[in-house]
Amino acid sequence: MSDPRSTALQYAKDNRARFRQELAELVAIPSVSADPQYKPDIQRGAEWLVNKLKSMGIENIQLLDNGGHPLVFGEWKGAGPEAKTMLVYGHYDVQPADPMELWDTPAFEAVEKGDLLFGRGTSDMKGQVIGSLAAIEAALHAGSMPVNLKFMIEGEEETGSPSMDKFIKKHADLFAADFALNPDAGMLTPTQPTITYGLRGMSYFELHVSGPALDLHSGFFGGTVRNPANELARVIGSMQDENGRVTIPGFYDKVRALEEEERADFRRLPQNDEFYLKQAGSKALWGDKEFSAYERATAQPTLDVNGLLSGYTAEGPKTVLPAKAMAKFSCRLVPDQDPFEIEALVRKYIEDTIDPSVSWELKLLSDAVPSISERNSAAVQAMAKAQETVWGVKPIFRREGGSVPVVGHLQGQLGIESINVGCGLPDDQLHSPNERMHLPSWEKQIDSFINFIYNLAE
Amino acid sequence: MSDPRSTALQYAKDNRARFRQELAELVAIPSVSADPQYKPDIQRGAEWLVNKLKSMGIENIQLLDNGGHPLVFGEWKGAGPEAKTMLVYGHYDVQPADPMELWDTPAFEAVEKGDLLFGRGTSDMKGQVIGSLAAIEAALHAGSMPVNLKFMIEGEEETGSPSMDKFIKKHADLFAADFALNPDAGMLTPTQPTITYGLRGMSYFELHVSGPALDLHSGFFGGTVRNPANELARVIGSMQDENGRVTIPGFYDKVRALEEEERADFRRLPQNDEFYLKQAGSKALWGDKEFSAYERATAQPTLDVNGLLSGYTAEGPKTVLPAKAMAKFSCRLVPDQDPFEIEALVRKYIEDTIDPSVSWELKLLSDAVPSISERNSAAVQAMAKAQETVWGVKPIFRREGGSVPVVGHLQGQLGIESINVGCGLPDDQLHSPNERMHLPSWEKQIDSFINFIYNLAE
Repeated sequence: MSDPRSTALQYAKDNRARFRQELAELVAIPSVSADPQYKPDIQRGAEWLVNKLKSMGIENIQLLDNGGHPLVFGEWKGAGPEAKTMLVYGHYDVQPADPMELWDTPAFEAVEKGDLLFGRGTSDMKGQVIGSLAAIEAALHAGSMPVNLKFMIEGEEETGSPSMDKFIKKHADLFAADFALNPDAGMLTPTQPTITYGLRGMSYFELHVSGPALDLHSGFFGGTVRNPANELARVIGSMQDENGRVTIPGFYDKVRALEEEERADFRRLPQNDEFYLKQAGSKALWGDKEFSAYERATAQPTLDVNGLLSGYTAEGPKTVLPAKAMAKFSCRLVPDQDPFEIEALVRKYIEDTIDPSVSWELKLLSDAVPSISERNSAAVQAMAKAQETVWGVKPIFRREGGSVPVVGHLQGQLGIESINVGCGLPDDQLHSPNERMHLPSWEKQIDSFINFIYNLAE
Repeated sequence: MSDPRSTALQYAKDNRARFRQELAELVAIPSVSADPQYKPDIQRGAEWLVNKLKSMGIENIQLLDNGGHPLVFGEWKGAGPEAKTMLVYGHYDVQPADPMELWDTPAFEAVEKGDLLFGRGTSDMKGQVIGSLAAIEAALHAGSMPVNLKFMIEGEEETGSPSMDKFIKKHADLFAADFALNPDAGMLTPTQPTITYGLRGMSYFELHVSGPALDLHSGFFGGTVRNPANELARVIGSMQDENGRVTIPGFYDKVRALEEEERADFRRLPQNDEFYLKQAGSKALWGDKEFSAYERATAQPTLDVNGLLSGYTAEGPKTVLPAKAMAKFSCRLVPDQDPFEIEALVRKYIEDTIDPSVSWELKLLSDAVPSISERNSAAVQAMAKAQETVWGVKPIFRREGGSVPVVGHLQGQLGIESINVGCGLPDDQLHSPNERMHLPSWEKQIDSFINFIYNLAE
């Protein structure tokens, strides 16, 4: 009889087609969290996971409800009271798929083309959820699981996990664990395993500016009252200087300076400036020249407009002086910036800058605390060794530009550090049309997680 | 037997219900020139006018085609070869009616409530076209018409009369006349007849800015490339200073200074700052404090954003770094600014200001030459006397903030000066939902035009 590690790896290999089928089932559920019309699909996504966990022998399965979308909880205590507990995080919600007309294949259908699997959520992060569950299922099947397990799979990550803070406060005992496995990160290239120790936070805003009581004729009224669209453009446009620095007073006060050691590590990463230029497809890079593109994308804060809407936007000229204008914009944050402090600074900046003849409202649509994790814990070392086994090279330690709010919340409230790993690649077109996942990397993720689990016993 | 003037006035009174019915028929044709889907309705609008002119005994009726929407031409030579010729201008096209949900009554239905007639085009300018034709029909019926007539009723005014320039060049002989009657102006209040001697011109732009090849994840790419929506906001936002002055170099170079006599006249107008504040419904007025609101609205140039669109604009947060952003914006111009010179200045400003890492395209969607007319011609005096007869007070001479491109073209190319009058009122909600016309003013317009016609003989 072979050892459990080998048995588990064989089991994963034998069941790969079924795992992929399960992923296709989950992708087919359009669990878009930002848009209320998909609420029933969010529910279906959560229930699909409940059934999956049940089939794996997970116990105490619950749909936790905090008024938003449900969080799927479950646990497994088979390693005994002396063993450590690993909290496995995931999210089953996805970004909106529009503009739909830019998809080459149906957005909510897992379509395989060569090594790629297309569909909304394949990479972010239904693929990684199914891959994690596959590895755990294999280890539970093979036996000798060295840790107890808890599962925390939320449905609000793509709207900034607005309920996670409250969930963790309310269910602190339920979520208590020694460390967390968070597969909502990614890797640099298909040949370079990666451990993410820093994540950016976020403050996401919606700004509404209104002026006249109703849309006016720009000939009769142009020049007499402030046009809210001009004013919105002026205020938003003045929030950055030409070097890419945010001009809001106090914005950089809490930014932790990069250590020289980190910067030296970063210079060895394959994600150089050329890489970013090619991935983005812009004419040139842009931003604060004191930092590399990688540093700007992961270890510096930003201010990006996410949406603009005002007045007449259909074909032809309409000479309207619009009554209102709207912008969505968001700041990615780095340690030790705080999303609510940034909200206060942005609010004060608008107050101080905007013309008093217009009315305005600023809403904070989502917030996430930035985080930095310990690079040398036993669990992180178990993951690093597993990745080296599977890929044949040591992982790279990096920071990442995206936000995983739960990582900040778990660290801040429960003292749980997360191991952030995943098989997502930079060109997976996350949040864009034609999102896709690289299948060979997904299979390596499953194998590396199995190795990781058994490394934890050593 | 009574004199022709009295006969014509009586005829107009007797036929008022029919004229109103004709206006309702024309309003029911949604002749929106900006939106190609209404092209068949534009055609129906033109044909309706052809039939109307035929019924009045007008000859040589033609639909002139220049590739855009047709221009309705007709003439009447009954005053004899020695008489002067009056060119009657009008437009049968209307602005788009959206947002439809803000209309209290159907947009394309003439609905009477008290003294007001609601519906798209009632005031701008189907009401004034029907009113003009009614007065001429009455005078033709009563006899002794002292001038020959030409009609020029276009279908592209609301898109900036893009073909008018070419129409006038191509048909210079057909349109030749001694003066023009242009009822596409308005009046200050229902009790104050008004003659408009200055009109603003316009350059209407659409600016497209693009950056990344496709929408990106703001977490992965935020900070590395210029966000086209931020850049659009910055460039547009920098085109004005906080005092409401346009910052584009050279913008004011050709602006003719206001004469002290004009400014003194303007100070006697009822359109004071409080008037503008109340009409606009903003919290306060805004703009260059060197000028009154009236002067800013009529005799100073502007730069107004008419539309903004970029990225994600539906509910909730979507962390997209958009690939492109669009703004529609327009400058109202005053003598002696030139719409093409302004286009060149705007283009140069963008070129000098915009970040070189984004791509951009500037389109001039429409242009209109600003104009100033002689205040003391015989025809203008005939109109002033007619207005005093009907309203009991002398007209006020004013400038107007809107653009009537044909006035500039007729003046520049054919040397024809226009008498700009009309019954539109400042709160008619032109270009907005719930556009309306004040019926008692409309009836006075008809009577004053009849008087004007017979005054021309004196």
